[in-house]
Amino acid sequence: MIAHLLSTGDEVLLGDVTDTNASFLARQLKNAGIRVRKTTTVGDDIEEISQAMNQISGQAQICIATGGLGPTVDDLSAQACARAAGMGLEIDRQALDSMAVFYQRRGFEMTQGDTEQAMLPQGAKVLVNDHGTAPGFYIQIHDCLFFFLPGVPSEMKAMFKTKVLPVLKEQFKMTDLVLIERLTIFGLGESKVGADLEGFEKQFHGLTLGFRARFPVVEVKIVGKGEIGNKNEIQATLKKAVQWAVDKLEGKVVSTKGLSVAEEVGRLLVEQNKTLAVAESCTGGLIANMMTDLSGSSDYFLFSGVTYSNDAKVNVLGVKQQTLIEVGAVHEKIAEQMAYGAKKKAGSDVAISTTGIAGPTGGSKEKPVGMVCIGMATENRSMAKTFVFPFEDRLMNKKVFAATALEMLRQYLVSGNQLPRCKQRGMDL
Amino acid sequence: MIAHLLSTGDEVLLGDVTDTNASFLARQLKNAGIRVRKTTTVGDDIEEISQAMNQISGQAQICIATGGLGPTVDDLSAQACARAAGMGLEIDRQALDSMAVFYQRRGFEMTQGDTEQAMLPQGAKVLVNDHGTAPGFYIQIHDCLFFFLPGVPSEMKAMFKTKVLPVLKEQFKMTDLVLIERLTIFGLGESKVGADLEGFEKQFHGLTLGFRARFPVVEVKIVGKGEIGNKNEIQATLKKAVQWAVDKLEGKVVSTKGLSVAEEVGRLLVEQNKTLAVAESCTGGLIANMMTDLSGSSDYFLFSGVTYSNDAKVNVLGVKQQTLIEVGAVHEKIAEQMAYGAKKKAGSDVAISTTGIAGPTGGSKEKPVGMVCIGMATENRSMAKTFVFPFEDRLMNKKVFAATALEMLRQYLVSGNQLPRCKQRGMDL
Repeated sequence: MIAHLLSTGDEVLLGDVTDTNASFLARQLKNAGIRVRKTTTVGDDIEEISQAMNQISGQAQICIATGGLGPTVDDLSAQACARAAGMGLEIDRQALDSMAVFYQRRGFEMTQGDTEQAMLPQGAKVLVNDHGTAPGFYIQIHDCLFFFLPGVPSEMKAMFKTKVLPVLKEQFKMTDLVLIERLTIFGLGESKVGADLEGFEKQFHGLTLGFRARFPVVEVKIVGKGEIGNKNEIQATLKKAVQWAVDKLEGKVVSTKGLSVAEEVGRLLVEQNKTLAVAESCTGGLIANMMTDLSGSSDYFLFSGVTYSNDAKVNVLGVKQQTLIEVGAVHEKIAEQMAYGAKKKAGSDVAISTTGIAGPTGGSKEKPVGMVCIGMATENRSMAKTFVFPFEDRLMNKKVFAATALEMLRQYLVSGNQLPRCKQRGMDL
Repeated sequence: MIAHLLSTGDEVLLGDVTDTNASFLARQLKNAGIRVRKTTTVGDDIEEISQAMNQISGQAQICIATGGLGPTVDDLSAQACARAAGMGLEIDRQALDSMAVFYQRRGFEMTQGDTEQAMLPQGAKVLVNDHGTAPGFYIQIHDCLFFFLPGVPSEMKAMFKTKVLPVLKEQFKMTDLVLIERLTIFGLGESKVGADLEGFEKQFHGLTLGFRARFPVVEVKIVGKGEIGNKNEIQATLKKAVQWAVDKLEGKVVSTKGLSVAEEVGRLLVEQNKTLAVAESCTGGLIANMMTDLSGSSDYFLFSGVTYSNDAKVNVLGVKQQTLIEVGAVHEKIAEQMAYGAKKKAGSDVAISTTGIAGPTGGSKEKPVGMVCIGMATENRSMAKTFVFPFEDRLMNKKVFAATALEMLRQYLVSGNQLPRCKQRGMDL
């Protein structure tokens, strides 16, 4: 079963609004086992809309069209549809009645323009709009069943779920199944992930692999499709495929549930009943911001000292002035003292810290842009490790530094509280 | 001149990501005087992509295609393009060289998959990608000039502006002048801004007004177009139009240079040679993160104490345990003590603070989700003020809380260091 989406409206076409309807509909259809093959956007132009419909009617079995159902002169979908269907327009009684009810309830008077919204192509069936005035409709043209919905996202979404899906399920006896597994990978580029997973399709017939780079992580999606009756079988193959991918990617898989590094760290902290403090120099609050974006984080996230100035490192975190003079702010010794200080100040179980050069300026030969020292303090030990990333962009560096610190903590948590190996084994606390 | 946009990628087609590239490109082309007539989205399917290209080549003179240029098996744009053009693929030396430079600088090794990114359709001209590995290219097919750009928005945007626009300008002899002024508005919704600026087009013939909601701010764009020879005249009209809009929007204009609230605060701090400290509870590091995203912020941003737990508020910022017991953590008294503590701890000239309920849980009748107390401590005074926003979404609340705190500081800085009016005038420091 092939579906196309058709978005109409100058405001969408010309970029004044971003089309979120299309992605909503694609996800909804995917969940219903229907693959969207193509999405087309045209403006408020009767000729363009009917031409697009003609093309779609020869290529797809289902088309969801959005927009152009309102009362103003630039609302042309019903007219364009009538033209594509080779039909006239006529007043739909049910549409008119439902609108009358909607207006009456709100104490509005219906204008001539409003009434025209009930003019539907001959042969169309109305889809009542419970959340707005413009009724939708559906109509078969050639091989394709066209649904027309309003462009206002809230109205469109409600109508799709309550009116369109039931029609689809009945008309197409939908039994197809789509199951998806999501892996989050940190520490490998998209092309390296692709290379590591070569041979996947041969190994797992019927499953497909998708990649998405969401810096600094790469997301891998494994998709299994089939009939509802084969659900258990598909699930079992997917499980094997996930394990195969995890083995191939050797410790670089952060989550097999599609969680971000921060979400996975949060989950582990809850599971192990541990609290976290952070000390941030070069990440400038990003780690705290990522953690506190998670609902419920107040259960385990206690504090971050965003100590950009050296004075703040000394006054807030208890970093030693003498060490700062000896080694400068970007050094494993400082990272270690920062983590230790944050842990002590907040009374947390663990703490991580960052000090480095995010750039674009401030680098030197010994301490280049992209260098970061990451510290960790645990129940009874502290340590620090240096990383150098090849990025010149400040925001990229902040992101990769933050993810590296969280990943170090994640590895500590999943390894049964083993500290990672590093040159400097750190001080006993 | 008719342009079509072609977005490729399963992740866009299937709704995993919302296509923001298309709206960016439509706006950019509109500014360059080129109207987008149609946008098509297809998945990672060589047949679909080349079919779509064939259709477009008969309908448009310009097509900007995005996505599918990366190193993995689902990156099929070059192959699909070669098929549509009836050409083979060949290694492009310039593309390969530019990639080699990119990799070398970052100390990466090029894999086979990487090299394949330099395989372009015969007759294509490379568009070097300065911000990523996948090169773009452009090629004439029938009546249409196709540009292929990466799908990663940051890379795509940079390449469109620096590589595609110059080619378009040269090929289509576009000499028209487009001048744009950008206002940033905080504290009014998009429709209110539109209503306040009603009558603009009558007042300023030839200028057009555009709106974009970028929560929590609204951006207003004033566009003047004409011949190069009339530059001074257009500039003068634009200047008048900006002043007119600023007057109409009564103090809600944060910047007339298109700066964000954080950027404008940073600019003012540099100008006035002042330093900033922050104390954040409900914004969880977002204010610090916004400020430290700005290059050069280490000159004025000293510290943020992200004190999620009450203990951290007491231990780090010196908030009084007694006050916490008496009034709870979300209160103007606490906000004031937090700001005072951050200022003292960091030795800054000014400090701002936030404590509130970001949600989605944790609200009560007296302290609902969306309520925030914002504190400020200056050279010799402190104060705090309560705001209640109608949002239930955690991330929306974090954003609007952070912007409100920064806006309070901005008003203080632009008013010649007048504290804003509030019920509780605060304590002398």
